[in-house]
This record gives sequence, structure tokens and C-alpha cells, in this order.
Amino acid sequence: MAENETGESAPDSAESVGWTVAKRVKLADRDNPFELISGKKLLDVEVEYEEYGPQDSESVIMVCHALSGDAHAAGWDKNWQEGQRRWREKKPGWWDAVIGPGKALDTRRYRVICTNVLGSCYGTTGPASINPETGKSYGLEFPVVTVQDWVKLQKLFCDYLKIDKLYAVIGGSLGGQQAIEWALAYPDFVEKVVVLAAAPKLSTQGLGFNAVGRYAILNDKNFSKGNYYESNCQPEDGLAAARMLAHITYLSEEGMHEKFGRRLQDAQELQFGFGVEFQVESYLSYQGKQFVQRFDANSYLYITRAMDYYDAAAQWGGGSLEEACKRIKSDVMVASFSTDWLYTPQSCKEFALALSRNNRPVTYVDVPSQFGHDAFLVQVEEVTHLLRHFLEAKRRWRSAP
Amino acid sequence: MAENETGESAPDSAESVGWTVAKRVKLADRDNPFELISGKKLLDVEVEYEEYGPQDSESVIMVCHALSGDAHAAGWDKNWQEGQRRWREKKPGWWDAVIGPGKALDTRRYRVICTNVLGSCYGTTGPASINPETGKSYGLEFPVVTVQDWVKLQKLFCDYLKIDKLYAVIGGSLGGQQAIEWALAYPDFVEKVVVLAAAPKLSTQGLGFNAVGRYAILNDKNFSKGNYYESNCQPEDGLAAARMLAHITYLSEEGMHEKFGRRLQDAQELQFGFGVEFQVESYLSYQGKQFVQRFDANSYLYITRAMDYYDAAAQWGGGSLEEACKRIKSDVMVASFSTDWLYTPQSCKEFALALSRNNRPVTYVDVPSQFGHDAFLVQVEEVTHLLRHFLEAKRRWRSAP
Repeated sequence: MAENETGESAPDSAESVGWTVAKRVKLADRDNPFELISGKKLLDVEVEYEEYGPQDSESVIMVCHALSGDAHAAGWDKNWQEGQRRWREKKPGWWDAVIGPGKALDTRRYRVICTNVLGSCYGTTGPASINPETGKSYGLEFPVVTVQDWVKLQKLFCDYLKIDKLYAVIGGSLGGQQAIEWALAYPDFVEKVVVLAAAPKLSTQGLGFNAVGRYAILNDKNFSKGNYYESNCQPEDGLAAARMLAHITYLSEEGMHEKFGRRLQDAQELQFGFGVEFQVESYLSYQGKQFVQRFDANSYLYITRAMDYYDAAAQWGGGSLEEACKRIKSDVMVASFSTDWLYTPQSCKEFALALSRNNRPVTYVDVPSQFGHDAFLVQVEEVTHLLRHFLEAKRRWRSAP
Repeated sequence: MAENETGESAPDSAESVGWTVAKRVKLADRDNPFELISGKKLLDVEVEYEEYGPQDSESVIMVCHALSGDAHAAGWDKNWQEGQRRWREKKPGWWDAVIGPGKALDTRRYRVICTNVLGSCYGTTGPASINPETGKSYGLEFPVVTVQDWVKLQKLFCDYLKIDKLYAVIGGSLGGQQAIEWALAYPDFVEKVVVLAAAPKLSTQGLGFNAVGRYAILNDKNFSKGNYYESNCQPEDGLAAARMLAHITYLSEEGMHEKFGRRLQDAQELQFGFGVEFQVESYLSYQGKQFVQRFDANSYLYITRAMDYYDAAAQWGGGSLEEACKRIKSDVMVASFSTDWLYTPQSCKEFALALSRNNRPVTYVDVPSQFGHDAFLVQVEEVTHLLRHFLEAKRRWRSAP
């Protein structure tokens, strides 16, 4: 996803949560392995997380990150400042525009928590972690993980921290699918659920794009069947290609046209070659290069596969989303963005409709936008407005009479 | 592009042009080099072509092929039958559904010609051809070619064959851009122009997709800076990735959803791995594998670059399409397809609007379709109907009074 472009706060400003330090908890070991939906077990699971706001607040909000995100949702990473996180760019957490004192997720009032997903490369156990069975990095020996596994682990995390209910779960894109899964898997645990730019399942086209991205990684000359960690050569070209492609799906044609059009990057005339020539080529090339500095190719495989696999209706309703939604007791808000073609307004609305058909309290908003899928990170003002009102509103859900 | 799915004729049927043999003509040599728009010169140019219908017909129709097409537009390749064209699949020419006795381009009446574009790998001189300067394949020494160069060469071809006017030029996609260029470059030479699923320029998003496809090829482990012809290893993975990606852009989400949905290929349950699992993955993987058997990676670079570069307004109107269209004297028909998101109806209509603003005779049709960009090959009935009526209609263009 594109990085947030507005609303960021400097570490010492009144609107920032300031310097942050990620923490880790061990949630599984040989005696208490973590069982995945696939039936496989992980004998060693650590979860990296950050939290902001008063620890004694009764209103705990779980924020779920998207494909390439991490636990560092707000503020400035102390470990980065001290040179221990070289991959981090000089910018605050990925949702700093929304989390902080006086912001939509007001840290004077809410305790906001963000955990990094299983399979990631940002602190939580993943394919780059050491497999206790072999003493080496898992690589592709790491089991395939799913959105359900992520949410189950987040619940375990809450139990560990003695959090006995969540005021809200909020996420965009793949984070929005985690929010949907929370509502379905733990209906008594969550009061409010916010799903931004996410549908109960990925489209066929989305499956296709993910397949091409993984193909590029799996066939990279340096991929070595996933065992590249000890080599000096990472599968950078494949990962860059996957990211460049994915990036196109995060923007709208309208937005790309406005931002780049057919303008050339560094020349007045066509160069008649295969170098980077158009501005849009330069932009995508830059995005690819930046991404390989900060992300792991195996993690990309695992997380896109989780995105493929998620299907709320299949998991909870025998194929019927309406049936699945009978379980839900949270107040739900779904927001789509008009030019999002990865999780289209139509596909997002399906979840809201299925809730509505069950007479569940649901708010659905389609936000006019030219920013495509990335709008959930970019349209800070609109998202802030929606979050603020939804979080402050009195809970509407009532059990059946 | 997908292969035509309907309307094909067996070689011995009354509707087929039957067995065909491609011919070649030499159109440039050291004494008469072919000068490209880049200023570079080719000292040796051969053009492969096929022709169908009566050679003495006064109504000559030039059919222009798209990205991965060739001169074999109709009938059955005799050289393939005799085992000299191993890459060809067991199917007739790419537009057999439309070209033949009694078909839309009726070969009892019209002389139909299709030439293979410069830079291709199907007979006309391209990067795999021998560079007379070195005695080796050009590879990336081959000059970048453009749609303008292709049309200039087609005109040279007509002159060589003593064809002094064309009744019509017809093409879809990149072939449609050649048709646009014909109307602009040789306004007195062409009576009727048919542009299917093509706009006067590629969108920003289209530029982005092409850039990612080329990135995959240029970074393939076997690409060797384009000098892979004498090696046993071709840049197949990169070319397959490029093709898989491009294929998604040829279909609509609606069509993909209907054809594949989220159905699994060979299993009842998820496999929790990174193999080909969903039907859409299987389809794309197959498309990639098939393509590398029949196409050259360098040609893919050259032809997508030509697609990037084409900009009718920039070339002929100082940036104004309306200004450019003042040159045009042909009757023009533009047909877009409602779910085409590579050359959107909106972008196709721009050409028709620019003609209309100049009071030029133009017919614009948006064909309702679920087949996306590929519709121009798939919706045979609709295309046949449109072509038949447009070709039979009395010419409408009159010079200004």
C-alpha cells in the first residue's frame, strides 16, 4: 500500500504518540503449540506488537495491518532512530494520520494495539524465523497461514494480555478481512468492527494478480526454493516485479492518469530504448526497489496466499455469506472507495448487505475517491470522520427478542 | 489475446480460405535502407504476409494484427501441416472467424492481406533476425520500432505489390492503432478504416502493466541482455510472467468471475501450498507456458514498446487529437467493448469524438460484452455484423465544399 501522505505528526508534536518501541510476546512453545487451520502446528510463536494510549483504558481497539504493514501503526520507531531498524524509512507508523492524541483513534481515550501477523517479516514468527526443529530458517517449511489463523493468534494475544473484550477491531484491505474474521469468529468479544476497502473474499482477478506476483518470486534466479536467507543474493527482481504489479492494483487509472499521464521522466523526447522513460515507469520502478529493501519474498508468498484463501462465506456459512453473518453481534461499519478495483465497492457492499438481511446493525459508506484501493490510507479526512462518528455512537446491536 | 473461440472453419469447408502459405518480400537492402522514425536505418527488411481472395479484386483490405498475432489471419497453415511451423497450434488463423468465403471479410469479393509487423518473431525482420552488420542475431541491437514505422512499411509493401489504394484497413487492439495511423499518415490511400478495441494512445495503467511485463523479461536469469538465441535457455519465466499479467488485462473481472470464480482446479479443499490451486491460476499458468512455446521475449519487448509509444495526437496534432483528425479523409468506424479496461470505451470514443468535431464521417459503437479486451476476437457475431454493414455502406466522406 502507499504510505500515508497526510496527517503525519513529528515525534514531539502534541498529536503524535511520540517515540514507540515494539514489544514481543511468546504465545506458543513445544508444550503449547499453536495449531493452524491447516492442521499443522507451530512449536514456537512470538508476536510483535505496539500499543498506544492508556493501558488501563477499558476501550481497547485492535488495529489490523494490511499486506505489507507491521505492528508500528503510529509514532516514531525508537529502534529505527537508534539504527536498529535499517529498513524503516524516515516516516512515522503506517496509520499515524489516524492514531494519536486527538485523532480519530484518540490515544487520550482508547488503548490502541496493533500486532504483526504470523508469516510476516516484521517481528512476528515467519518464514525467516528459526525453525526449532532444524535450527535453520523455515523458508518454505513454514506452514501456510490464513486470516483465520491470524485472528486466532490475536485472540490468544488478547487473552495473554488479559484483555477480556475489544471495543473495536479496525482494518483496511487485508486488515479489513481480519476485522471481518474477528466479527465472525469471536462475536461476543468485539463491540464494533470497521472494515475499510475489504470484501469477504478476493475477486478472481485479484487471485490472478497474486498468482502472477508469486510466479515472479518463485521463478527468480535467487529464490533457491525459499532457502536464500544465508545467501548474499535475495530474490529481489521477482519481489520487485510482484510489488510493481500489485502497486498498479492499489491505484485507480483515474489517479494514475492525473499523477503521471504519459509524461516522460527525464527527457523531452522518446529515447527509443527499454529503460525507464515514462514517469509511471519510474514510479513503479522506485516502488519495486524500495520494497525489496524492506520486505521478505517468502513473507510475500505467505501473506498473498492468506489473501487468496480468505472466504468468509465458505468458512462460516457453508458458502452463504448471509448464513455466516447470523453469528455476528458487533456493530459493523463497512467503507468502500469509489475507484477501488481490488476490493470494489460492489464486493465490499456484499458484507454489509448480508448483515442487513439478518437485521444486524450495519453502516455502509462508499467514499468518492480517485485514489483507488490506497484511498483507505490516503483519504485521512474522510476516514477520520467516519471512524470518529462510528466509534462514538451508542452501540446498536441487540440480541433477538 | 485469446484465440478466437467461435466461427472457425476446417480447411476443406466452404467457409474457409483453405490451406495457406505465407510469402515474404524484401523491402529494404543496403542500397535502399528502411528509415525508422527514430532516425535509425535497417539495411535488410523482409516482410512476411498472407493474402486471401481474388488477386485482381479492386477492393483490397489490409488487416492489421495485434501484439502476439502474425500474418496468418485465416485458413490453415500449409507449412504447419508439413511440420515446418512447430509452434503453431492446431487451429486456423487468428481471425478465421471473420475472414473467408461468405464471412464478414468476404474473400469471394475482397482481396484480404495481412502483413506481420517489424520486430515480430513470425517471419518479418525482428530482433531474432540476422544483423547484416555482424552476421549474428540482432538481439537488443535491433532498433526500437513504432506503430508509425509499421504503417510506413505496410505502405511500402502496398507500393511493391502495386496496390494503389486500400478499400479498408481493419485492426483490433494494437492492430486498431495501426488502422488509426493509416488514416492519419495516408489519408488519400484508404477509403475505410475500422478501429476495434483501440484508442489513439495507451492509458497510464497500460503503460504500467507493460513496464512490469518488460521488467520480468529483462530480469530473467536467461535473458543475457537479449543475446539468448544461441543458448539452450530462453528467458521463459520472464516472458511467461509478462504474458500471464497481460492476459488478465485482456479479460474482464466479470468474465473471469463467470469462467473461474474462486473454484479450485484439481481438489475439493485448499492445499495450503504455493502450487497452482485455483482454476484461474491454472488457466494463467497454461497461458504462460503456451506463449513461451510460440513467442520471442525480445519481440515482446519491442512490440509492447511500440504500444507504449503510440500517441496519435502527439504525432499528428501537436498534442491535439482534434487537430490531428483534420487530416483524415477515410470513413471511420470505431467499436469499443463495454468491459474492455485496457482500451476503455471512453478512450476509444475519444478518436470518434475528435473526428466528429471535424465533421468527418464516423460511426462509433460500444458493444455490450463480458469478454473485456478480447471481445474483439470473441464476439464474432457482433463484429461480423458491424464489419459487414460498414464495408458495404456507400462512402460518406466528401472533401470540404
